[in-house]
Amino acid sequence: MRHSGRAGDELRPLHAERGYTKHAEGSVLIGFGDTRVLCTATVEEKTAPFLRGSGQGWITAEYSMLPRATHTRISREAAKGKIGGRTHEIQRLIGRSLRAAIDLKALGERTIWLDCDVLQADGGTRTASITGACLALAEAIDGLLQRGVLTTSPWRHWVAAVSVGIVAGDAVLDLDYAEDSSAEVDLNLVMTDTGHFVELQGTAEGDPFSAGQMADMLLLGRKGIDEIIAFQQQVFPAWSVPAR
Amino acid sequence: MRHSGRAGDELRPLHAERGYTKHAEGSVLIGFGDTRVLCTATVEEKTAPFLRGSGQGWITAEYSMLPRATHTRISREAAKGKIGGRTHEIQRLIGRSLRAAIDLKALGERTIWLDCDVLQADGGTRTASITGACLALAEAIDGLLQRGVLTTSPWRHWVAAVSVGIVAGDAVLDLDYAEDSSAEVDLNLVMTDTGHFVELQGTAEGDPFSAGQMADMLLLGRKGIDEIIAFQQQVFPAWSVPAR
Amino acid sequence: MRHSGRAGDELRPLHAERGYTKHAEGSVLIGFGDTRVLCTATVEEKTAPFLRGSGQGWITAEYSMLPRATHTRISREAAKGKIGGRTHEIQRLIGRSLRAAIDLKALGERTIWLDCDVLQADGGTRTASITGACLALAEAIDGLLQRGVLTTSPWRHWVAAVSVGIVAGDAVLDLDYAEDSSAEVDLNLVMTDTGHFVELQGTAEGDPFSAGQMADMLLLGRKGIDEIIAFQQQVFPAWSVPAR
Amino acid sequence: MRHSGRAGDELRPLHAERGYTKHAEGSVLIGFGDTRVLCTATVEEKTAPFLRGSGQGWITAEYSMLPRATHTRISREAAKGKIGGRTHEIQRLIGRSLRAAIDLKALGERTIWLDCDVLQADGGTRTASITGACLALAEAIDGLLQRGVLTTSPWRHWVAAVSVGIVAGDAVLDLDYAEDSSAEVDLNLVMTDTGHFVELQGTAEGDPFSAGQMADMLLLGRKGIDEIIAFQQQVFPAWSVPAR
Amino acid sequence: MRHSGRAGDELRPLHAERGYTKHAEGSVLIGFGDTRVLCTATVEEKTAPFLRGSGQGWITAEYSMLPRATHTRISREAAKGKIGGRTHEIQRLIGRSLRAAIDLKALGERTIWLDCDVLQADGGTRTASITGACLALAEAIDGLLQRGVLTTSPWRHWVAAVSVGIVAGDAVLDLDYAEDSSAEVDLNLVMTDTGHFVELQGTAEGDPFSAGQMADMLLLGRKGIDEIIAFQQQVFPAWSVPAR
Amino acid sequence: MRHSGRAGDELRPLHAERGYTKHAEGSVLIGFGDTRVLCTATVEEKTAPFLRGSGQGWITAEYSMLPRATHTRISREAAKGKIGGRTHEIQRLIGRSLRAAIDLKALGERTIWLDCDVLQADGGTRTASITGACLALAEAIDGLLQRGVLTTSPWRHWVAAVSVGIVAGDAVLDLDYAEDSSAEVDLNLVMTDTGHFVELQGTAEGDPFSAGQMADMLLLGRKGIDEIIAFQQQVFPAWSVPAR
Repeated sequence: MRHSGRAGDELRPLHAERGYTKHAEGSVLIGFGDTRVLCTATVEEKTAPFLRGSGQGWITAEYSMLPRATHTRISREAAKGKIGGRTHEIQRLIGRSLRAAIDLKALGERTIWLDCDVLQADGGTRTASITGACLALAEAIDGLLQRGVLTTSPWRHWVAAVSVGIVAGDAVLDLDYAEDSSAEVDLNLVMTDTGHFVELQGTAEGDPFSAGQMADMLLLGRKGIDEIIAFQQQVFPAWSVPAR
Repeated sequence: MRHSGRAGDELRPLHAERGYTKHAEGSVLIGFGDTRVLCTATVEEKTAPFLRGSGQGWITAEYSMLPRATHTRISREAAKGKIGGRTHEIQRLIGRSLRAAIDLKALGERTIWLDCDVLQADGGTRTASITGACLALAEAIDGLLQRGVLTTSPWRHWVAAVSVGIVAGDAVLDLDYAEDSSAEVDLNLVMTDTGHFVELQGTAEGDPFSAGQMADMLLLGRKGIDEIIAFQQQVFPAWSVPAR
Repeated sequence: MRHSGRAGDELRPLHAERGYTKHAEGSVLIGFGDTRVLCTATVEEKTAPFLRGSGQGWITAEYSMLPRATHTRISREAAKGKIGGRTHEIQRLIGRSLRAAIDLKALGERTIWLDCDVLQADGGTRTASITGACLALAEAIDGLLQRGVLTTSPWRHWVAAVSVGIVAGDAVLDLDYAEDSSAEVDLNLVMTDTGHFVELQGTAEGDPFSAGQMADMLLLGRKGIDEIIAFQQQVFPAWSVPAR
Repeated sequence: MRHSGRAGDELRPLHAERGYTKHAEGSVLIGFGDTRVLCTATVEEKTAPFLRGSGQGWITAEYSMLPRATHTRISREAAKGKIGGRTHEIQRLIGRSLRAAIDLKALGERTIWLDCDVLQADGGTRTASITGACLALAEAIDGLLQRGVLTTSPWRHWVAAVSVGIVAGDAVLDLDYAEDSSAEVDLNLVMTDTGHFVELQGTAEGDPFSAGQMADMLLLGRKGIDEIIAFQQQVFPAWSVPAR
Repeated sequence: MRHSGRAGDELRPLHAERGYTKHAEGSVLIGFGDTRVLCTATVEEKTAPFLRGSGQGWITAEYSMLPRATHTRISREAAKGKIGGRTHEIQRLIGRSLRAAIDLKALGERTIWLDCDVLQADGGTRTASITGACLALAEAIDGLLQRGVLTTSPWRHWVAAVSVGIVAGDAVLDLDYAEDSSAEVDLNLVMTDTGHFVELQGTAEGDPFSAGQMADMLLLGRKGIDEIIAFQQQVFPAWSVPAR
Repeated sequence: MRHSGRAGDELRPLHAERGYTKHAEGSVLIGFGDTRVLCTATVEEKTAPFLRGSGQGWITAEYSMLPRATHTRISREAAKGKIGGRTHEIQRLIGRSLRAAIDLKALGERTIWLDCDVLQADGGTRTASITGACLALAEAIDGLLQRGVLTTSPWRHWVAAVSVGIVAGDAVLDLDYAEDSSAEVDLNLVMTDTGHFVELQGTAEGDPFSAGQMADMLLLGRKGIDEIIAFQQQVFPAWSVPAR
């Protein structure tokens, strides 16, 4: 029994509020339990510098925590004048993950910026960010199609992410902060609606883990991903069958 | 008639949601129309370096906009590696303003950090920040009193802020983004529940303004401040008569 | 009686040395008592990036203190690698103030940089900077007219600045460092030769101040501004009657 | 057949030169084919700040490429004034990986810095860095034991890393730069001499990959890790049977 | 004949104004022709970190140009966020040079900061800085002796600097900006009142130079140094015979 | 007798390994005793920004120490976010020195980057860097000639560098770290194969030095330079008689 009363293979309650802010082309407030992330998508009508002239677009992400999203206040990276290693790692992960959702050639020479700002952190901020950013991206792509900027959908897959871990010897799904702090193994999975892997990152926090433990975690993760993608498709029903 | 249909002396609808996030000692989401700012207060059990040993506490503020709070995306200051002039100016203003709310000696050797993060911007983000930060500060002080950390209240005043301006020749209250962009004069007032000034900052965007225009703006501002403070006292009724 | 023997409404002795350095298009060493600021104007034949193609020019300012302008040495901002909040605030104020002196369209697509470097500080460095920068700007504009680069004068107003404050309960004009350190209220006024306001910034250092106190300070400030503008016109007599 | 003539499950030639530089407590030049990394270990007699008083030590890593380690020159991060995202990600990975090699309590309150400087890059610089840093760490620990600073060995595991990928549809081991550039999937494995996982990071560069492909890659990776650890034990024979 | 009419071995007119600013412990405005540098000395009652507990003091220098000291405006290093290579090189040179003037043990555990701010540049700013900083240092040391903080003088030597160069084939003394720009060789000498070398730095701007040319330049430099030291002793007559 | 057993006028053993890394256009690992520097040359097909359109090329240098090149680990400048004064000074010196080796007009509008990375430091890293960079530059120029990119050689001189110093009263050649730490005078010479000076930089670490001492050091330095240039010509025999 987990401290929250959840079963080992049970996700936290998911919620998502579309159109949370009014200026962005996509804007979703996503919640995994008490973890809440504001994900926005911004469409810029030029591609990344290294892709100019290639006919291909780009998806890039930035991630940040509000200073008091956490138990104790953390300093702003702007005040420190540099972005820390953890932030770099997470925003690179989000960007890579969401590039799998889209056919970049079909997007054309434009960039979509995905901003993930954590309003409240309770474990799993990177997986919530990927899941929410995919919804914001869907809103932005939908807008491009509605406005006729794009005539063919560049959409390839729903992409969702979840964490799995070994806590007190048991494999559990979707760790909250208390579990994350005491986990022996932490594995983040990013997968598509076809059950394929986009990214997987596993770390032994204490003792190294066995192939058997990994197999257990992968099964659990797959179950979680399927439920999260079902949730995404419910939040954004128009695309439960993607256009491409 | 203003583009929004408001009368010249009419505030935008005010809203405030207390306890918006769970970790901070004070946390208020304030709205002035479509401008929404998340204000949190963090209590740190040491004072500012230059006050060590003085028995006196400190109030300091940080301000930031999420990248897509605005019509077009703005780069993160963390990514640029430095805080811009406008941000510096605003966060210094918030800090000075809120220090007027509190007797720093009665606060004792602790610091209260006020973080104002703009989720959505539609003009008046600095005045909304000050007004919301005062509510978050009240929550934090209240917690210190409830937990017995403080036995005497350091509270001195409710502090609120509002903008006034000359738009198309007329003095108007609480400018939204469209008005702010075309205002000839922009005046920000920070005042207390006793009708005194904490800060006032006026700028002629176009032609310099006369003493007469300033008198008109001050009257309008006073009316707005009174209404905003009444709103604060309704959001936080326990303190409508401050303890000190 | 003030510690310096001055009357409450008395300015410190003003001095100004034109052509203080030889390379700049305008160069004035201004003194308000012991406060001495070297103000230079540099004409650059391109406008600010956001004004390209608009036909309009720009005035921008930078402000700095030499490390030993003050009682104790302060670290260079270059050595710290970033510009502090106070510097940002002051240089933005100087820029905004001086843009009121000039018709930016008549200036054409060029930038005038106003550099204010404080050689010695004894209170009121920002007001001395604005007053001196206006003289340096006049020299630079005069040069553009003399050399035929401009044929119509873009000059609109003499702009001057002064501080007023409440010290030991009394309103006093042009505070020196000792007064500034103990002032209850500090109000900086930037005004034109027509008696209009360009900027006003008032701050309660201790208790908030009343509307009555503000009225007193505004009167005192107006008297000071008139004397300072008379001084500017004497230093630069050609323009006592501006061309426009 | 791979472009280099290697079989799909064949590592590049491994070489290692111990004591490559004379000042460091551990210093190994490691080569995986044409990839060459100088790995040094520095012992510092104080632990990380957040571990002070805990009795526990720390292992941390820094990674850098010489500007002309690559086909075209890359700018130094020192000249740009900040460390890029890729560098952050890699040096965090190296640090986490090597902390699994050591019992940090048995190390006592000291820090071991592992510096991995890539002299020549031909793919797999992060896996070569981890493998070489483990040898440099062994040298440093050995020195602490020899000099009697430590009396019990804190050594837990040999740690090695290798990349596996899908190139042109086939799973291949230990990708060089040409293969890495065209790989569809890139998986980095960090494992111990007991065949357990310390880290695994897989990324789909093109299409997402299936569970079956991952199983193939894990088998291949395990074979490579076993050979690399045998190589480590030959380079540092004293520890083929670790002390703990 | 030089463009200025000076003879090849003739210095520019020297001037020095002592006590130019009032707060610093030493403050001298030095002029070598049109080159003008404000040199201040600040006494801090603690030594450099690496000398704590050694009983020894430290002399350190900082150098900067006002943005419009030069023909065209140069950006502030504070605005760029870093100190350039040329500035670093010059301030390290000034520091090393002036440490030769003082017995650091006799100074005791204090630091003297020498700030050299170039108000107007016309060639030779580094040599003027060293020469002026020596005068500011003398003022500061004199103050320490007068106030009884020091009872024995730590003074060892007058230190002065001058440039010599090969311009159009001829060796010339004390180059101004026009000469410096076209010089084939540029040699800076820092010497003591005993005719010994503290520093010498020679650079071939075009063709490398011969031992014979160097001998000519050294003779010329020695003549210049003697005249400059005589000038220093006249500006600060009390110390024409140093105390030690 | 020196601590190493060398005679006063004896260089440390010199070694050089050409083609040390495979990607760079020039790549030489140079050794002066235990000091080892990896010098690479990179050819970029555009000139420095300030030379565009001039038909002239540029040579620039960067210098860095690996963190554990020294007795105790030094922090990376990338981690500190800025390049220190010593590094700036050295890389400017290397760049100026090597520009003397080449006719920049004959090089055409291209830049050659010389990267000098110190793998192991035992005194004289800057002189080893200059000497090794000249060899890497020769390799790069040779490649441009071989590939027909250049048809006329821009080569002017072999450039080499050596340190001389006064240690325990005696002039000695090519100081190692132990000697450098206790030297009274440190003089670095950069000279050509024609015996002319490119740069000379002398510093009195303790007492200022006399003209006689300088003459002794110059003689010793000349002897060392001649031997080093003979060594360069042996490492790169094709150019013992330069093409120009």
